[in-house]
Parts: sequence; structure tokens; C-alpha cells
Amino acid sequence: MRPDLLKELLEKVGRGALDPAAALEKLRNLSFEQLPFARVDHHRALRQGWPEAIFCEGKSAEQVLAIAEAIVGSGSNLLATRLDAEKYALLEGKIPSVRYNREGRIAVAIQDAPPPGGKVTLLTAGTSDIPVAEEAAETLGALGHAAERIYDVGVAGIHRLFAEGERIRDAEALLVFAGMEGALLSVVGGISAVPVIGVPTSIGYGTALGGMTALFGMLNSCASGVTVVNIDNGFGAACAAHRILAPLREGE
Amino acid sequence: MRPDLLKELLEKVGRGALDPAAALEKLRNLSFEQLPFARVDHHRALRQGWPEAIFCEGKSAEQVLAIAEAIVGSGSNLLATRLDAEKYALLEGKIPSVRYNREGRIAVAIQDAPPPGGKVTLLTAGTSDIPVAEEAAETLGALGHAAERIYDVGVAGIHRLFAEGERIRDAEALLVFAGMEGALLSVVGGISAVPVIGVPTSIGYGTALGGMTALFGMLNSCASGVTVVNIDNGFGAACAAHRILAPLREGE
Amino acid sequence: MRPDLLKELLEKVGRGALDPAAALEKLRNLSFEQLPFARVDHHRALRQGWPEAIFCEGKSAEQVLAIAEAIVGSGSNLLATRLDAEKYALLEGKIPSVRYNREGRIAVAIQDAPPPGGKVTLLTAGTSDIPVAEEAAETLGALGHAAERIYDVGVAGIHRLFAEGERIRDAEALLVFAGMEGALLSVVGGISAVPVIGVPTSIGYGTALGGMTALFGMLNSCASGVTVVNIDNGFGAACAAHRILAPLREGE
Amino acid sequence: MRPDLLKELLEKVGRGALDPAAALEKLRNLSFEQLPFARVDHHRALRQGWPEAIFCEGKSAEQVLAIAEAIVGSGSNLLATRLDAEKYALLEGKIPSVRYNREGRIAVAIQDAPPPGGKVTLLTAGTSDIPVAEEAAETLGALGHAAERIYDVGVAGIHRLFAEGERIRDAEALLVFAGMEGALLSVVGGISAVPVIGVPTSIGYGTALGGMTALFGMLNSCASGVTVVNIDNGFGAACAAHRILAPLREGE
Amino acid sequence: MRPDLLKELLEKVGRGALDPAAALEKLRNLSFEQLPFARVDHHRALRQGWPEAIFCEGKSAEQVLAIAEAIVGSGSNLLATRLDAEKYALLEGKIPSVRYNREGRIAVAIQDAPPPGGKVTLLTAGTSDIPVAEEAAETLGALGHAAERIYDVGVAGIHRLFAEGERIRDAEALLVFAGMEGALLSVVGGISAVPVIGVPTSIGYGTALGGMTALFGMLNSCASGVTVVNIDNGFGAACAAHRILAPLREGE
Amino acid sequence: MRPDLLKELLEKVGRGALDPAAALEKLRNLSFEQLPFARVDHHRALRQGWPEAIFCEGKSAEQVLAIAEAIVGSGSNLLATRLDAEKYALLEGKIPSVRYNREGRIAVAIQDAPPPGGKVTLLTAGTSDIPVAEEAAETLGALGHAAERIYDVGVAGIHRLFAEGERIRDAEALLVFAGMEGALLSVVGGISAVPVIGVPTSIGYGTALGGMTALFGMLNSCASGVTVVNIDNGFGAACAAHRILAPLREGE
Amino acid sequence: MRPDLLKELLEKVGRGALDPAAALEKLRNLSFEQLPFARVDHHRALRQGWPEAIFCEGKSAEQVLAIAEAIVGSGSNLLATRLDAEKYALLEGKIPSVRYNREGRIAVAIQDAPPPGGKVTLLTAGTSDIPVAEEAAETLGALGHAAERIYDVGVAGIHRLFAEGERIRDAEALLVFAGMEGALLSVVGGISAVPVIGVPTSIGYGTALGGMTALFGMLNSCASGVTVVNIDNGFGAACAAHRILAPLREGE
Amino acid sequence: MRPDLLKELLEKVGRGALDPAAALEKLRNLSFEQLPFARVDHHRALRQGWPEAIFCEGKSAEQVLAIAEAIVGSGSNLLATRLDAEKYALLEGKIPSVRYNREGRIAVAIQDAPPPGGKVTLLTAGTSDIPVAEEAAETLGALGHAAERIYDVGVAGIHRLFAEGERIRDAEALLVFAGMEGALLSVVGGISAVPVIGVPTSIGYGTALGGMTALFGMLNSCASGVTVVNIDNGFGAACAAHRILAPLREGE
Repeated sequence: MRPDLLKELLEKVGRGALDPAAALEKLRNLSFEQLPFARVDHHRALRQGWPEAIFCEGKSAEQVLAIAEAIVGSGSNLLATRLDAEKYALLEGKIPSVRYNREGRIAVAIQDAPPPGGKVTLLTAGTSDIPVAEEAAETLGALGHAAERIYDVGVAGIHRLFAEGERIRDAEALLVFAGMEGALLSVVGGISAVPVIGVPTSIGYGTALGGMTALFGMLNSCASGVTVVNIDNGFGAACAAHRILAPLREGE
Repeated sequence: MRPDLLKELLEKVGRGALDPAAALEKLRNLSFEQLPFARVDHHRALRQGWPEAIFCEGKSAEQVLAIAEAIVGSGSNLLATRLDAEKYALLEGKIPSVRYNREGRIAVAIQDAPPPGGKVTLLTAGTSDIPVAEEAAETLGALGHAAERIYDVGVAGIHRLFAEGERIRDAEALLVFAGMEGALLSVVGGISAVPVIGVPTSIGYGTALGGMTALFGMLNSCASGVTVVNIDNGFGAACAAHRILAPLREGE
Repeated sequence: MRPDLLKELLEKVGRGALDPAAALEKLRNLSFEQLPFARVDHHRALRQGWPEAIFCEGKSAEQVLAIAEAIVGSGSNLLATRLDAEKYALLEGKIPSVRYNREGRIAVAIQDAPPPGGKVTLLTAGTSDIPVAEEAAETLGALGHAAERIYDVGVAGIHRLFAEGERIRDAEALLVFAGMEGALLSVVGGISAVPVIGVPTSIGYGTALGGMTALFGMLNSCASGVTVVNIDNGFGAACAAHRILAPLREGE
Repeated sequence: MRPDLLKELLEKVGRGALDPAAALEKLRNLSFEQLPFARVDHHRALRQGWPEAIFCEGKSAEQVLAIAEAIVGSGSNLLATRLDAEKYALLEGKIPSVRYNREGRIAVAIQDAPPPGGKVTLLTAGTSDIPVAEEAAETLGALGHAAERIYDVGVAGIHRLFAEGERIRDAEALLVFAGMEGALLSVVGGISAVPVIGVPTSIGYGTALGGMTALFGMLNSCASGVTVVNIDNGFGAACAAHRILAPLREGE
Repeated sequence: MRPDLLKELLEKVGRGALDPAAALEKLRNLSFEQLPFARVDHHRALRQGWPEAIFCEGKSAEQVLAIAEAIVGSGSNLLATRLDAEKYALLEGKIPSVRYNREGRIAVAIQDAPPPGGKVTLLTAGTSDIPVAEEAAETLGALGHAAERIYDVGVAGIHRLFAEGERIRDAEALLVFAGMEGALLSVVGGISAVPVIGVPTSIGYGTALGGMTALFGMLNSCASGVTVVNIDNGFGAACAAHRILAPLREGE
Repeated sequence: MRPDLLKELLEKVGRGALDPAAALEKLRNLSFEQLPFARVDHHRALRQGWPEAIFCEGKSAEQVLAIAEAIVGSGSNLLATRLDAEKYALLEGKIPSVRYNREGRIAVAIQDAPPPGGKVTLLTAGTSDIPVAEEAAETLGALGHAAERIYDVGVAGIHRLFAEGERIRDAEALLVFAGMEGALLSVVGGISAVPVIGVPTSIGYGTALGGMTALFGMLNSCASGVTVVNIDNGFGAACAAHRILAPLREGE
Repeated sequence: MRPDLLKELLEKVGRGALDPAAALEKLRNLSFEQLPFARVDHHRALRQGWPEAIFCEGKSAEQVLAIAEAIVGSGSNLLATRLDAEKYALLEGKIPSVRYNREGRIAVAIQDAPPPGGKVTLLTAGTSDIPVAEEAAETLGALGHAAERIYDVGVAGIHRLFAEGERIRDAEALLVFAGMEGALLSVVGGISAVPVIGVPTSIGYGTALGGMTALFGMLNSCASGVTVVNIDNGFGAACAAHRILAPLREGE
Repeated sequence: MRPDLLKELLEKVGRGALDPAAALEKLRNLSFEQLPFARVDHHRALRQGWPEAIFCEGKSAEQVLAIAEAIVGSGSNLLATRLDAEKYALLEGKIPSVRYNREGRIAVAIQDAPPPGGKVTLLTAGTSDIPVAEEAAETLGALGHAAERIYDVGVAGIHRLFAEGERIRDAEALLVFAGMEGALLSVVGGISAVPVIGVPTSIGYGTALGGMTALFGMLNSCASGVTVVNIDNGFGAACAAHRILAPLREGE
């Protein structure tokens, strides 16, 4: 449920067009919609400022479509993450204005453009980290933020990072995507004062342990005040940036 | 080095009282101070808006004192974390206006009051998580932020949490301290829209694995957009909140 | 071997129709049936009140069929878990009245309806946990219990859970299925007084560690008196509920 | 808060001696009591049938005493687990009728005798598992259940276990305490039909991994329908038995 | 190199038909045979009483064939473990008298019948452990020992095990194959006095951890004097039995 | 219970001095002796050829003494492992002919000399592995076997090992004690044909992981047919050697 | 960027053909080349003496080709590791003089022959370790070093290793490739004085843990002064050898 | 045994003063010296160019002294690592010219000055890593190399590192000591071309996992050609540097 729809409801109550008790009941019923296999949380946009996204891994194409239709039907914007190209094919004809980022495996359908947000810079240590960064970039866009991409600037060739000093200093928040040893987060965290969120990726082999080494490295970063999300969780990092930047916009 | 000292230096250059080349050299030399066993990073306040803190675990009382004197001598505020009461005894007479939080094992000496900051609410799941929260609370205070404490509101008695709904909704950022299964983060993350940072604590036994279970639980939180710091890292969580709230203040 | 068959045997002894020594020997021989690759434990229903189930993973379709025929041939009900649709195809013509739950990957053939049992409520945190819950639901049904399904009520949208308060309070036992951080168990355990069994699922990625994080989270639940079974073990959770509820029925 | 106190309150409302709104407020305020470092959950007895227990590890003797006084002051029974003898010394004079089980490191103060409960049999694999079993035995007693102790019956000398067949068959619930490989659970689970709860203990060395091997062994038990609690969690196992047996008593 | 060939060589030296220095050189050269990708250790039969076996996983069918031909060419018996049916197809025409055990995925070619050995009993906990046991059974046969198979006697139906008491007591060595919690080893180890070797298998799911739980359970067995080999290592267990039984045969 | 005592009992039955039913009852009752905290398994010597040993870690000195007196009182030999010098002090006056090996932390009291056994060679990789080897050496002695000690022959100076070739070839069984990487087992296993048992020790630091690295290394030994016991389990390795060598002696 | 190209640039500056400021700018711009998904580090050859290599796993064939063309276009030599045969097919026509080692899954294109380097000996414990060794061998060749191959000399047949004593003593650096328990490193490290680098491989099963056991074994080697690289990292080991041997060549 | 002593022996043989067979025997006997609990490897200096060091952890002061006297008695230099100050007290009067580095917990006694070696630079990320670096520095000194110390230059204040660029570029080998996330190795490895050896330290808390995170981070370094030793193994890193630099010296 979008906040504006709610306001409309409340205004009806205010001008006597709707009984308060009826409104309460309606509100309660609207808060989620029950499918046979899911309860779509229409209330989330109201509570948190962003709609429920569909995590598509482990859901059938039919389930994804049904949930997507429920979300779009309630007037919310749609984000579907970890979506294979084959599953996306089913959405394409049926969800209006849906768009697919193949590298980030994410589909987006914007019905209601978000208010302009902040500027977030995304840095990846290598080429292989890009898909996770793209998931974040699309999510940021759907929430109204500008995503600046600085890719393949790992610390083994640290001059590549320093050459981008200006774009790094310009950002309102930084997302750092790195697998292997995850050292990029410490260097970036040490040269900036804005919020920095590390996204460990599952890139690497052997002792990279599917991203666990990058995660633990980032949690032990000698740069203070950096925070971390789950391995490969580009969507979560973008939402975290949104939690940070939304109040900044409101204050303007 | 404090930003105002730097400005003074640059102004001297501007009015011809100092040769630019000499200023550059001075600037470079001032950026850190070399003790026999440490390089105090005076430059950090300039780069990041907060001074270097001393992590006292594994350092002798003498080393802590020497680094503390170097920091205070440069005009910066002092934060010394993981400081035993015995080691603190040595600081007490020698560092002016130093103060000790026994529960949080942290010493603070404020020479230069920070500008007024934001409002951060700290929630702990249990009584045993309080020391980690106190480390964060003192750090927040030293950086100018107000720390609201809501302690012992774990999800097994969830009415205790909901009774504090107002104070939770009021916060500009939320820090959630929990050991064991760390479930408090998911519940708090689901009912709020501001930045939420989870601090897993090493509380629990057996499969609590010294905080690892709480950490992994928090990283897998079904509430989107929450971020996490290292186990028991109250200081780091406070610095992360500062990275988030500092720009909000500047904009005012 | 079904208890009633045993009683018949013993009655024959009682009325002199069978020599006690012969009965003993027969009893012993009947306790299990030796296939080339398995010893079907016909004695289990007698000892424990439920028949041996077939865990089909790692068994060939032919082995599954042979064991199923031995179980059905002894007059017991059949439960075959972790059964692929392809393997099920072989059973379909050959085992009378067999039925297949595709989502729960479980086949059931009831020859002898169980006495009416208790009321068990199954809660899942998300949509992806449903297959494990369905395995439990079918097992409960085969043992005579009513399975109430409340799916997709994870704690990130905790109002969805509280909206089902009545159905939760009505249950005689609660099974909680959750992957990721498994926090749902703590919240449910905290608001109910009946037996609560957690079933960690392998849903999630990265630090979800294939269900290990949910398992450890559940074992560390701050709600006291909840117990846990192996990851994805819906069958085991249903059997545990049966151990709990069977005496309640007997007492009526 | 004890249920009978609540009934009294509601009856006052019923006969007009108390205003409903005032009663509601009172009810809400009474649900927990705020100490500087804890919120004692007086409401728990109402919700779950057993009072909040104090987990004493990591709490100072003063904190334990304060919480104990709050619990006893509200008319509830007291259970304090993981309590060192030194900390107990402080309680001894101050909490009326308190009693200490040194082996189980647990203190109990019964103000209000619980209704008679069920019969629970506790089996330990070895002598070293006894302290964990004693914590459970005391907790069971405080909740009104009879605790039958069968100690040191590990499977390496399986005749010791079978010699106790009758007492095992008599139980309404079985708690199995075992460290090392935890095999006792599977054998006991295979010969009984009542609820069986495994409590892995931290006994053993090397690959015993502080109880992790026993835990994992128990979770993988080939005996179906057994459940498990955290390592060394005797208190939790007793609470789980209480959840199971309480309804059986009520029905009588 | 077979011991009898060596004896022939030494006898030539003894009767002057071969110069000692030349014999030494020949001996050294014969000890292994260099293929482009392997050094076949012909000397092993001499040192240890059994020939080098081929571990086929990760080797191409061509490599397996070449090594097999080298072994057979030197007059030794052939054992090829972890051999897929497809790879075996290549051997079938080319290695004389080769035979394949599909379940155990092992090929055997006996050129020189071994002297009659001991009696080894193989017990599996379940049906799924049989392939590992079959690898051991074939290896034992190739080394001259009789392999008694007692399959599917896990402890959840312990009467199935005790029904085989006589065959267990008859064995000169016992091999116990079990996945999941591996409890069978402790029970068998407790009722027998002969050498008992545990073979953890990778059977199970979730916390079975690919056999690690069975392994750790076996290493912590409360039955003293049992030993363990690597997960799924049926071949190794058979060789260990051979090391034990060979001297018993020699003494006859 | 010692086998000779049993034989006496049976002979009484044979010559009519004891009723068979009474003998059976007596036999059953004698099989274990119940202390308040332990069931001493007197039957073990009969079943397995060696008496129950006391694992003293986690038992009080009083418990150790009581169990020791029960064992000695039944006429069996005594082995008490993991026994601190302080706890031993209590035994010294009270158990006749008891003796203490301080390095191996093991006490032995022989009442009945065992029949002469085999020759077992113990090799340690370093000096720090000696305590574990001494536990094994004393156990072997108590069971009648000769223990040959070859200490500090790790593979980094492999000439030290080869200098002992003759004593290695002479052994009927080899026990290899090594921490760190445990490589000694593979080298010894490769040059000998008799039974070889690896005992990983907890020696080393960092990635030695308390013996886990040595254990896993040994389980993956490229020398076939070696087996392994738990970390630091010298007693278990000696019992395993006894299982192997006892039949060899009987055959003579 | 190759050093000789840089020298040319600087010489232009020296003879006035290029303005220093322009040269600086050019230098900076030349240091890396930005593709849409990668920043090729042309500067690396200058800093470290070897060009950037392409790690092809997780990159599309198109990405590999584009980066390869950028590297070759800048005049550098090309190394592409972890390259599947199918991806290589695309390079074959388009990169001049490219060559493929199928076993080592590595492609090499030499445009500029490196100066003659050192002599490096590669030892593998088994046949299955050869692919990792081949990756190292090709890398060494591309950097100018001679790679001596001694394959399949694991310690279970230690005479195979000692038979190669001379070639081992001749080497200027030794690379040891071993999976399973990794013991070969300790033996080789103990008999040689030159630099020895261990490369754990992912060969083995069960407790081999994908190479982790070999890695930890190597890190705990009792041979002092050996170092280790990541699991299966043949390329990294070759680069480490190059770092060691390059200065030796320069000194000649 | 020192090489010069060996040469003397061989010269005696050359001039007929010693019978070759007698020399051989003498040589063999001299290769190690057998103490009751250790075999001192006098041969090591000959094989590898550095003497056996004593790892003192887990050895009694008496054992350390006895081994030290054997080493010094053979004319070799002495290195005793992980030596507590209390144990050192015993050595002080009895080993001539012995010296103690309290921070590095290492004792050194030089009887025979080594030939001048190379220049090795030691970098630590923090103050707490210094003890491990000091162990390496003393070892290097005893082997003839110059140890340059650059301490407390972690990447969070990366300007501190770059300020030392010249001393870094000057080194013939670099040792990098870092705990926590270990990122310093990647940065240093990326800006230098000489051999770089990472030494993970056990500094940090929570997910630092006792140095495991630093170790895994270093093994996954994106800087190619860096190698790693065990956690806290300063001695091993110094020996590795000696293996690298010794040939450079010989060539001069």
C-alpha cells in the first residue's frame, strides 16, 4: 500500500465519507494480501519507504508472476532479484513497463517515479564483482538515487583507485563490492568520511570460502565505522543506503 | 590534527607569513607522529571527522599512556576502548579531564566539545549485552550525539519492545545489540525506516559460538537494509552512526 | 507389523491354538524382513506407534519400490520421503491407493486409517520454506493429526504473524519452519505455552550456510523450552509432534 | 505476575471495584518491572505457565540479587541457573526459602507449590554429564514434575541401559544427556514411543568440539521424532518437557 | 614387483649368474616404472604385501588404462577404485580377467590368487552405506579374505543388530559403515573384543555435513580401542584389516 | 568381573554346587556395580579382555577414588587416565600397588599380571608429543605388551627416522604420535606392512587447530591401510593395538 | 606498459622532443586502460616485472577476448589462466601466436621473449596434482624460467622421491604440489636449502576438505622456512618464484 | 654439525689420516645427538645452512636448557623461540653470550658470526603485531641479515605507508605482519617486485578468529606472487627470507 493511498483513506474518514471503524478494518485487511503461498506485505512501503521485493531464487516462475502481479496491482513499484532470464521471460509480456538487467539478474517496473534521492558511488575490486554491484545499482535507481559506477579498482593496482579520488570524495554514500580478501573496503574506508557499506562477494576460490574470507576481512576492517551486509547481497546494501539517504532528502 | 589548526596554517600561507613549500612539508610531517611503537594518525580527524581511538587490548599500560599523551598533545579528543580498570588507573592522574565508564571499559577525555549531533537509540536484547552498548554510548557522546538507552527488550517477551515504540520511532539511527540468536535485529529492522546497525555480542554458550551465531543471524536478517559490524564492536557501530548523522547536521 | 496382528497372534496362544515357543519364534522372525539390501523393521509400529518410513534419497527407484511393497505387504501404512517425481512414477501403478505431494516430495499410502489425533499448526517464515512444511503436513496427516498451515509470516512484517494470533493460540503443538536467521521461532516461542518445535531450513545464501545459521539461531533461542530437529527435517518434526500428542489422545 | 493475581484484578473490574481503563493501565504497567539493567518479565507466567528464570553467567552477584528480589517480590517462584557457589552465598540470607543444588549450579525458591505434574526420566551417558542433568532435574521439580534419574548408562556397555528397561518404559518423557558421540539418544529413541529430548553436553576432548559433535550426532539420529536443545542446556530441556506435560495434567 | 620375481633375481646373484652391482642397479630401476604422468610403485607389494591400487577419480580413462596395463604387465593384481562405469568400459576388453562391481564402483583383476586370509564382517547402518561397504568387500576378496556382509542394522532398530550376534562374534575383524550420527560403531565396539574399524560415510543431509558428523562421532566413541578411516574410504578400511590379519595367517 | 571368577561360577553350576537359575541371576547382578554417580562395568573384562578405565578429567578426586576402589575391589587391574598429580595424591595411600607416570598423567595398579603380549613401537614426531605416547605406553604395559619408544623423529630431519629402520621393521604394531601437520604417519605407513595407528596430538599453534590439522592430515594419508583415533587419545590407541595383538598371542 | 616503451618516452623528454608536463600526463593516462568492465593495469609490468594476467573463471569469453586484446595491444605478453577449452577457441584466431596448455587450462602469447631466468623444479605428490603444476610451469616459461617436472613422488613410496635427489638439489627454487595430507612439502623442505613454496591442491575427498587439509598441513610443516600460496594457485606460486629469481638474474 | 667441521673430517680422509669407512660411521653418528626426550639434528646446518632452533612452548625449562647445551656444545648458534622470561632465567647463567628479546620472546646466542646477508624490511599493520615481527627480526639477525623495522603502517591511514616508500623500495625482501583483515599484504604486494612474505597474526577479536581471517585474506591477496606462513610464525618467515637471500650472497 502506497502512503498516498492511505492518506486518501484517512481523508475520507476526516470528511465523514468513511466510518472510522470501517476504515480501521479496511486498513487491517489491506496490510497484506494472501496468496496461496505468500502474504504480500503491502504495508511495507508505509512502514519503511520502500516496497517488498521478490527474492526469486527457489520460487517457481508462476509464483514470481503471481506475487509480481499482486505488488503491481496494489500500485507499488516492483523489484524482482535473483531472477533468471528464463523466469523473466514469463514476466515480460504481463507486467507493464518491466525492464531486466541481465548482468545483475534483476527486473524493475516503475509505476510511480520516486522523489529524487542521493548520490551513491559503487566500487568493485574486480570485474567478477560487477553482477552484485549491478543488483545494487538497479535497486538504488528504483528508489530514486543516482548510482555512480567505479569498477575494477582493486588494491593490487592502487593507482587505479586513487585516480578516481574526486568521484569518491563526491559521494554521499559508498558501496564497496569485493571478493577474495576484501581489502578494498579498508582502503576506501580510510580515505572517506561518509557512510561506507561493504558487500563481500563470493568471488575467488580455495580459501576464499565462497565469500566468507571477504566477509570476515571486512568485519575486521581497520577502518572504523564501516558496516557490512551478507555475501552477494547487493539489494540489501542498496536498501541500507536508502535508509541513510532518505532523511537527507526529506530535510531539503 | 584538528581541522581548525590546519585552517590556521593555510591562512598563514595566504597572508604570506609562511612559505607554501614549508607549509607543505609541515603538513606532511604533522600528519602522523612516530612513537617507538606506533604512528599516531593526527590526520584522521581531518580526513574523517573523528580522531584516532586507542584499542587498548594487547597494549601495555605504558604504551596506552604514551599514545594517549600524543593524541591529547595534538589537541584532539581521546577515546580509549577495551581498557581495563588497572590500565586506566595510570591514565587518571596524567590525562586532563579523563573519565572512565567501567561497564563499557572505555575512557574519554574531551578537550574540544563536538558540535551537537543526532539522536541514536541503543537497544539490547538482554542484560549481558549492556557493556558493548555502553562502549557505543560513550563513543557517540564523545562525537556529539545523544544516546538513548533501551536495555533488555529481547524478542522472547516482545511486549517489552513494543512498549517502547515511541522512543524507537523517534530515533535518527538505531543500534541493536544482541547475542545468542540475534533475532532482535530483524524485528526492529522490520518496524523502522531509519538506519539500523546490528552489533552481535559474544553472549551465549554452546552453539552461540562466541557471537558467530548472532552475527550470521543478523547478516541473514529478513529485514532488508540493516547492516552489521564485528562481534562486540560497540565503538565501530558508533562510528558508523557518526558517518551517517554528521551530514544531516551539516545540512542544518 | 501392526499391533492388531500381534494381538491376534497372542490370542491364538491364549486359546491354545499356537504353542508359546512357536509363537516366540514367529514373533522374532516377523520383527524384520530381510531384502537383499534392507531389513524392513516391521516391529517399529509396535514399539513406537508409527511405521518405518522410506528415506528415498540415495536409493534407486527399484529399491524404493521393493521396500514399499514389503511395508505395504505387512499391512502397514506407507510414507516415502524425499521422493523425486520420476521415482514416484514407478510406485504409482504398483502400490494401492498411493498419493503424491509434489511440493513436499512425499508419497503416502493409507491402508488403515489412524485414530483421530491432535491439532498441529505449521508456520513458515517465507514462501521458500513451504516444501519442508508440506513434508511435515503429510506425515502428520498419515499419523492422524490435523495440520493447520500458516505460511509466509516472517518477523520482518510481524503484523502478518500477529494477525494469526487466534489460530496460533488454538494449536496443541506448533512447528516453525524458517531459514536465513530463523528468528520466527523465538517470537512464536515467546507468545505460546504449548510445545514448539523449530525446523531450520536450508533457505538463504552466503552466511545462511545451508541452514546452519537458522539451526544455531534456533538452538540459541531466547524463548525457553523450544526444541529443534535437523535442517529440512519436516518428517522428523511431525514424528516428534506425534510422540507428544499420541498420549493426549489415549487419555481421552 | 501470577495468573491468580490477574484473576483477582479482573474480578475487581467485574464487580465495579475498579475502573476498566485503570485496570488496563495497571495491567500494562505490571507486565514488566524495570530495573536499571533489566526488565523483569512478570507477564511470562501468564503467557507460558512458568516464570522468568535468571541466567546468572555474566551477571554480577548484585544484579542477580536485584532481579531475584523483583521476581520473588511479584509472588513468583525463583529459578537461578549457572549460579556459582560464591554468587549464591549472597542470595542465601536474603531470598526466603532459597535452596542450592551445587552440582547443577542452580538455586530454587518455591513460594507457591506448582500443581502435580508428570514423570520425566533423565538418562546420562556418563558420570560427567550429571551436572547438566541436575540443572534439568531441579527445574522439573520447581515446575511440579517428578524427575527419575538413571545415570551412567552409555552405549559402550549397553547391558547397563537395558537393565533399566522398565523405568524407561514408565516415563512420560525422556531427557537424554550425552557428550562425546551422543549415541545414547539414538538407542533410547529407538526403544521408546514417548517424547525424547536430547541434551548434548560439552563433555569430551579433541574432536568432541565442546559438544558440537554430540549435538550434530543427535540431530542426525536415525531414531525418528527425537528433538534437541542447545549444548549443556538442562534448563531448556526441562522447560520443553513442561510444555509437553502441562496439557496432559490439565486434562485430568 | 612381486616378491617371487625378486627372489629369482637374488638367486641368480647367489649362483653367480648375475653380478651383485648389476643386481642392485636392476633392483633400483625396477622399483617403479615411469609413465608420462605417473610412477607406478612396483615395489609396494614387496614392502607391504599388497599392490598399488588406482584411485580413478580425477584421472582420465586413458590414464587409468595406462596405469592398469603397467600394473598388470608387472605381474601384479589390479584394483581400480572410484571407477565410473563409463571408464570401466575401456578396461573391459583390454585387461585380462577384469571384473566390475557396479555398486562399489571398483574393478578387480586377479592374476595370482592370494593365500587364504581371515574372516572380516562388514556391518552397515543403512541401505545407503552399502556402496562403500562393497568397495571394502571387493578389496578384501582381492587380498584373500572372506567378507561377511550384514547390511542395514542401524541402532534405531537395535534388535536387527542383536539378531546377528553370532556372525558378529565369529569375525576376526569388524568393519562398521555408518553415516548420519555413526552410533553403530559404539554399540558394535562395546559388544566385541576383536579389531573394529569405523568407516564414516557421507550419507545424510543438513548437519550430517557430508560425513563429518559420523566421523567425529566415531572418533569420540565411548567404546575404547576402535579406530577410524577417512569418510567413504572402504578401500582403506580393507587394507587396514589386511595389515591386521596377514600376520595371523602367516603364523599358521 | 574377571573371566577366571566367571569360570569358577560356571564350574560350580557344572558340579551341582549352584542352581543354574541362581547363577544366571548372580551373573546379571554382578555385571555392573552401582555407585551414586557411576555404574562400574565389571562385565567389560569378560566381553573385551580389558577392564574399564577411569577417564579422570571432569571427575572429582573423591569420585575417582570411589570408582577406583570399586574396580580394584572386584579384582580387576586399574587404569586411571588424564589424572592430575593432585588427584593422584589421594589414590596413593589407598589403592594397593598403584604407580603414577607423571608425564603421561596416568596411574596403574596391577593385581593380576596379564599374559605376555606383543611388541608395539611408539614413534613421536617431536618432544612435545611424548606425554600422549606415555599414556599409550603405560596402557600397553598394563595389558601385557612391550612398548618400544622411538621419540622425536619428525620428517623434517628424515635421517633420524631411517636410522631406526630396524626397530620399526621389528614391531608387530606401530603407533605414530604427531601434531602440527602429522606427516610422520604417511612416511611410516609407507615403509611398513604391519598395523599402523595414528594418534594426532594437539601440539602446534595457529592453523594446527588444536590437533585438527594433524587429524585430517592423517585421515588423508596417502599410505593405505593406516587408521586413526581421536586427538591426544593415547589410551585408545593402546586399546586398539591390544584388540589387534591379543588374538596373535592366543594362537601361540 | 612495457619498461622499454617507458624508457623511450623518457628519452624523448630528455632530448626535448616532449614537454615534461605532457609526459607526466601521458604517463598517468597510460597506466591503465579502461574497458567497460575492466581497467587493464598496463603499469604492472613496470612496477613488478610481469604483466597483468587474466583470471578467466567467471568472465565471459567476450570479456576475456577484450582484455586479452587490450594487453596484447599494449605490447605486453599474455597469460590467461583457468581458461576452458571452449573459451580458448575464441582467442585462437584472434590473438597472434597464442598457445594453449589443455591440462593446465592456461593460454600464453609471447610477443617479447623474456630474459633467461632461473631453474625451478616442480614436484607433485600424485598424478591428479599435475594440472595445477602445469599452470605454474607455463607461467614460469612465460617469465623466462626453466621448469623441471618431477611428477607423482608422494611420500607413501618415498624411494620415488629420493631417486630424484640430484634434480632436487640442482634447483634454484622448488614448488611442491600436493593435495590430501600435503606431507610431501615437509619432506622436501627438510632435505633442501633453497626457497620451497607449497601449493596445496583440492585433490582428495571427505576430510581433504577441498584442499584445506593440505593447506593447513603445509602451514604447519615441521620443515622451517617453507611458504605457501592459496589452494590450486599454480600461477601465484610461479609469480612468487619469479620474485625470488629475478634479482639473481639481474646480478649476473 | 657445522660445515667447517665436516670439511675438516673429509680432509683427514683425503690425506689418509682417517679411514673412509670410519669416517662414514663417524659422520652417521654425528648427524644427531640423542637426549632422553629429543634428537638434536646437528646435521641441519649442513643440509640447510641454519641450525635447529628450539620451539620452547610445551617444553619444560630443564628440557630447553638440555637441548640448548647440546646445540651450543656442537658449536652451532642458538635460537630459542616462544621462550617465557621465567624459562629464560634458567638459560641466562648457563649458556655463554646468550641474549633475550623480551618483546619477541626469543633468546639468541651467537658463537660464530654468520656471513653478511641481505636487507629485509619488516612492516606491521599495528602496534600489537610487533612481538611477532621482533621474533623474525632477531632470527634474521642471527642468520646475518639486516632487519629494517617499519611498524604501525596499516591501510586505514595509508599515507603512513606511502611515506615510507623509499625504505620499502630498497628492501631485498619484505615481511608483512598483520592481524584483523590482513589487507596490508595486498597493498605492499601491489607496489613492490621483490619477494613478499605475509605473516598473519592472531591480533583482533570476534571474527578475527585468532588470525584465521588474516591468513585467509592473505592467501586470497589480489597481489600476485606473495606467499604466506602460519599464524604468528615470525621465525618461519625469517627462515624463508634466508632461503631466498642466501644464494644472492653466495653469488657475490
